Amino acid sequence: MSKDALLARRLTAMGPAYKLFYDRPVHLVRGEGVWLWDADGRRYLDCYNNVVSVGHCHPRVVEAMYRQMQTLNTHTRYLHENVVRLAERLGGLMPGDLNTCMFVCTGTEANDLAMQIARRVTGNRGALVTEASYHGNSLLVKALSTDAYPADERPDWLAVMEPPDAYRGPFRGNDADVVANYLANAGEALARLEDAGHRPAAVMLDSVWDAPGPLSPHADYVRGLCERVRAAGGLVIADEVQSGHCRTGDWWGFEAYGIVPDIVTLGKPSGNGHPLAAVVTTPDIAREFASRTSYFNTFGGNPVSAAAGLAVLDVIESEGLRARVADSGAYLHSALEDLARKHDVIGAVKGRGMFLGLDLVADHDSREPLSREALGRITTRLAEEGILTHITGRHGNVLKIRPPLPFDRSHADIAVAAIDQVLAGM
Amino acid sequence: MSKDALLARRLTAMGPAYKLFYDRPVHLVRGEGVWLWDADGRRYLDCYNNVVSVGHCHPRVVEAMYRQMQTLNTHTRYLHENVVRLAERLGGLMPGDLNTCMFVCTGTEANDLAMQIARRVTGNRGALVTEASYHGNSLLVKALSTDAYPADERPDWLAVMEPPDAYRGPFRGNDADVVANYLANAGEALARLEDAGHRPAAVMLDSVWDAPGPLSPHADYVRGLCERVRAAGGLVIADEVQSGHCRTGDWWGFEAYGIVPDIVTLGKPSGNGHPLAAVVTTPDIAREFASRTSYFNTFGGNPVSAAAGLAVLDVIESEGLRARVADSGAYLHSALEDLARKHDVIGAVKGRGMFLGLDLVADHDSREPLSREALGRITTRLAEEGILTHITGRHGNVLKIRPPLPFDRSHADIAVAAIDQVLAGM
Repeated sequence: MSKDALLARRLTAMGPAYKLFYDRPVHLVRGEGVWLWDADGRRYLDCYNNVVSVGHCHPRVVEAMYRQMQTLNTHTRYLHENVVRLAERLGGLMPGDLNTCMFVCTGTEANDLAMQIARRVTGNRGALVTEASYHGNSLLVKALSTDAYPADERPDWLAVMEPPDAYRGPFRGNDADVVANYLANAGEALARLEDAGHRPAAVMLDSVWDAPGPLSPHADYVRGLCERVRAAGGLVIADEVQSGHCRTGDWWGFEAYGIVPDIVTLGKPSGNGHPLAAVVTTPDIAREFASRTSYFNTFGGNPVSAAAGLAVLDVIESEGLRARVADSGAYLHSALEDLARKHDVIGAVKGRGMFLGLDLVADHDSREPLSREALGRITTRLAEEGILTHITGRHGNVLKIRPPLPFDRSHADIAVAAIDQVLAGM
Repeated sequence: MSKDALLARRLTAMGPAYKLFYDRPVHLVRGEGVWLWDADGRRYLDCYNNVVSVGHCHPRVVEAMYRQMQTLNTHTRYLHENVVRLAERLGGLMPGDLNTCMFVCTGTEANDLAMQIARRVTGNRGALVTEASYHGNSLLVKALSTDAYPADERPDWLAVMEPPDAYRGPFRGNDADVVANYLANAGEALARLEDAGHRPAAVMLDSVWDAPGPLSPHADYVRGLCERVRAAGGLVIADEVQSGHCRTGDWWGFEAYGIVPDIVTLGKPSGNGHPLAAVVTTPDIAREFASRTSYFNTFGGNPVSAAAGLAVLDVIESEGLRARVADSGAYLHSALEDLARKHDVIGAVKGRGMFLGLDLVADHDSREPLSREALGRITTRLAEEGILTHITGRHGNVLKIRPPLPFDRSHADIAVAAIDQVLAGM
């Protein structure tokens, strides 16, 4: 079938709320490692997809799921070893006493449950998030996603801070000043929450702020933010739905800041494409939550999902992907810095590990963001060159590069050469 | 490993919020069709699990998923045929112009999205549900689940009706009186909503009310309820997360009432264990929703999930499961009615299709519910006899029988004989 016919059928059957990437959508039919192929046999280097964390169609994950699918798939009302082993493995990879796991299917469900736990346990209702945040799409976590709805619809229990963007935000200068100013901004948000009659149940902490970023702020800022929220009676929820599972070169994005959150949420990369997500917290918090309510998620933690989750951890460990990310991420970051010196349109290289972005500017000095339309043209041109990327950032001006973890130096060279060429041709 | 050791590890790694079925939990390791086996090799007849709708580990579903898992798994930002075909197939099975599908991963996500759509499209905030309802576990749909939290925490936008239980509810007698009284009760709930300053965005309509049931009320009640809600400006959301996919002997549970909902939510049986769920609505509602917001669900409608959903539809059609359910469901219902004439402890046989319950009573005349503890003993005894069931109902006194769809007359005979024996031994 032609792509146009499929597009028309899709619009009819799925409606107009669904959007597609690129001005000329891509019709993918096959994936392997960091590579994708479309219906015409064209090959693409995947520089964007984090869900297939250990690589497209990784045989070890596929076979583990296949074996379990042939054997049994039920739910957590019956005993099964897989889900217990996955909970133990994840807990063992976390610092402190973050070793109680509850399983859900999506990052949205994980963040929704985490916020419900924080509210139950603290007795408070408020939440702290940044501008241009994104934490999911249920009614509750959509409210936490300031990127996703008009500002005048924000609930009064939500306090919104500036994203800690030292390049583009209102506070710039030396590290100490930047940290102090962003912390003061967080303090003001907490004060507004109090004025509205609310105490914080939690701060939603992206370890790599994606929607307004990708941002990887100074550790002192993150530590100070956690201290202020805890002093006000709130918990720290680390949203590791994107930054977890070695995306940053550490197992969890929050490790770089030297903090131990109260609740960690896991999602996208957990099952290499299979809908698997989790909430990890301390025994005390889990016990306090359980004393007030029970929890069940029909599909969450089923034996097949757990098999996927275990296989992903196995692959990361056996293939040394954490060290790979640290190496390739640094290499890619450095190559993008070189590119930034060559192209004035690159204002800054943001992020860390394999979670990077080019903040593109219309004017290098004023830092005026390049238009969304220009970004759309760039990502479409890159797709034509066989490089899949996409866009992020508060102004839609950041070229996001967030490939599967097996992406290595040779892939980085290919991606950087194509970006170089496309930016040169603008 | 011993069951006790696994239980202890589970409690440590997953915390106390997770509950297990039966006084002596079952450790299942294998499933096939309507049969399950535990770690000691004991076989169980599955009379409870609706998620594995077309039977445990159905090879056609497993192989379809395996093929797609080996080939490609991405998301709906790229074109792919599977999700379009699944949307078309589901839309084609729905009445009226219910032919726009949006994909999510769980019934919770489907109901959460449906309610968000209803609120956006109507501009209203209120919702109508019954007492002892259950629609999922996100903050929003937990609020719609009166079974799941204390009554004094109900939001003011929620209006709660009596579940239409002609056996146990406050309104009994002839059909016309029962219908009139329950409709009057619904009218009072709408009036309370208006008094609280809210108009209804939607009524959540279980086609087989499970948590307070299973109830299958008179069609005039359901039709009248829909009329009243629509007259007040609200939409009708049919929650088919349990009653869909031929559970009742029709494709969708609402068909028996001769209504066409505005939004239909699908969940549990959609992927035969794989986390696949959907919201189906009309092009007008989808367009209106899309005009105000966009929607994306990372895992929802991915090529593997869609392959699972297509395979489930294929199996239902090629194995004639809809007719099978109509036949076996009627046979089982009749056998349970026979059992009710023999055992005074059975107050009523409830539900329809393969979604049945025995309302167990301590006293046949007063209809005093049998205690939850007694039900716990009965389901545990049945499990010891190799029959897996569980409990539902507002008072926890209903023995729920809701097997995979391939359950046939011979399986019904086995289940009924065991129930007979266990009830006789009480």
